[in-house]
Amino acid sequence: MRLYDFLDSGNGYKARLLLHKLGSPYDRIELDILEGETRTEAFLAKNPNGRVPALELDDGTVLPESNAILVYLAEGSRFLPQDRLARAQCLQWMFFEQYNHEPSIAVARYILRHTPDGSPRRAELPTLAEKGNAALGVMERHLESRQYFVGDQLSVADIALYAYTHVADQGGFDLSGYPNVQAWLARVASDSPHIPITAG
Amino acid sequence: MRLYDFLDSGNGYKARLLLHKLGSPYDRIELDILEGETRTEAFLAKNPNGRVPALELDDGTVLPESNAILVYLAEGSRFLPQDRLARAQCLQWMFFEQYNHEPSIAVARYILRHTPDGSPRRAELPTLAEKGNAALGVMERHLESRQYFVGDQLSVADIALYAYTHVADQGGFDLSGYPNVQAWLARVASDSPHIPITAG
Repeated sequence: MRLYDFLDSGNGYKARLLLHKLGSPYDRIELDILEGETRTEAFLAKNPNGRVPALELDDGTVLPESNAILVYLAEGSRFLPQDRLARAQCLQWMFFEQYNHEPSIAVARYILRHTPDGSPRRAELPTLAEKGNAALGVMERHLESRQYFVGDQLSVADIALYAYTHVADQGGFDLSGYPNVQAWLARVASDSPHIPITAG
Repeated sequence: MRLYDFLDSGNGYKARLLLHKLGSPYDRIELDILEGETRTEAFLAKNPNGRVPALELDDGTVLPESNAILVYLAEGSRFLPQDRLARAQCLQWMFFEQYNHEPSIAVARYILRHTPDGSPRRAELPTLAEKGNAALGVMERHLESRQYFVGDQLSVADIALYAYTHVADQGGFDLSGYPNVQAWLARVASDSPHIPITAG
């Protein structure tokens, strides 16, 4: 398998982390999104949406979308439940991640890391902070009585939400008001094997 | 089953359409999002994210997120493939729908339908138009050589994308430049049984 990836991307990290946990060998192709390397005709032929991560299977099929990649890879492993409702609940949290969490927390992080001080994009930060804190609040409430997002063990739902939550401070978010989220982050990080976000 | 819903919502329509196709009986509870009826403490206890649709199962479990509801309901039916890769590809398009499609096309439609002419939210429309047309372009390219989004028959991926695409004109989008998308819309609508978006 070949993973088209960008090292600073939390979405790419999701796939990297799960591949590492599964012990699955793969080649990693770094594409610099800041230099437009995901918008070349060659890459658009693989993923017309022009985004990483995208997983190229041995038969040449390219599967984009980080959370679809997680589900594909996790099939048959301890990271994806067999039960119909539990599987749907994993998807529930992964859709929440892509709709409510990533577009605020990951985008705020991107703006702070990759745009200059005077960038007009900085004007987006207050709205992103509000929406990101709302998402963190939903997570905090859910974790009041739970160790993991679905069932009683780590799943693809946790991996999806961990990716940008554990670097939310880089997006200007203060997690000290979210003790359940902080305890859950430590729980996820203690599941072995683990890798940091920037590891290739 | 009980569906918490809002009739004008394309996300709610996804669940309604699939429930109708499956012939599954359910009670529909209309919550007016314009009047804050999804933000009451009673509803937040069911879905802390305060959104519809949300599907309440007979045991009281509440499953939010329209696309997670689709997958849950479609299990074992003709609308969800059994094959591991095809299932992941359904998810791929459903994540695309929630990340690239819905936040532009559905939001533009919402602004045009539910905010007054002079609303400051109208300033969002040019950016939403650009992002929505990019999403429609990705769909158009994918449908060049295909009848449906995954495999050769209608799936939850088509239902998810059909919901807001077939009313994209209400968001100011002109589909005449997307002939493959138009042909696909007609194909989805001809799959019987079918219901329009406003049917309860």
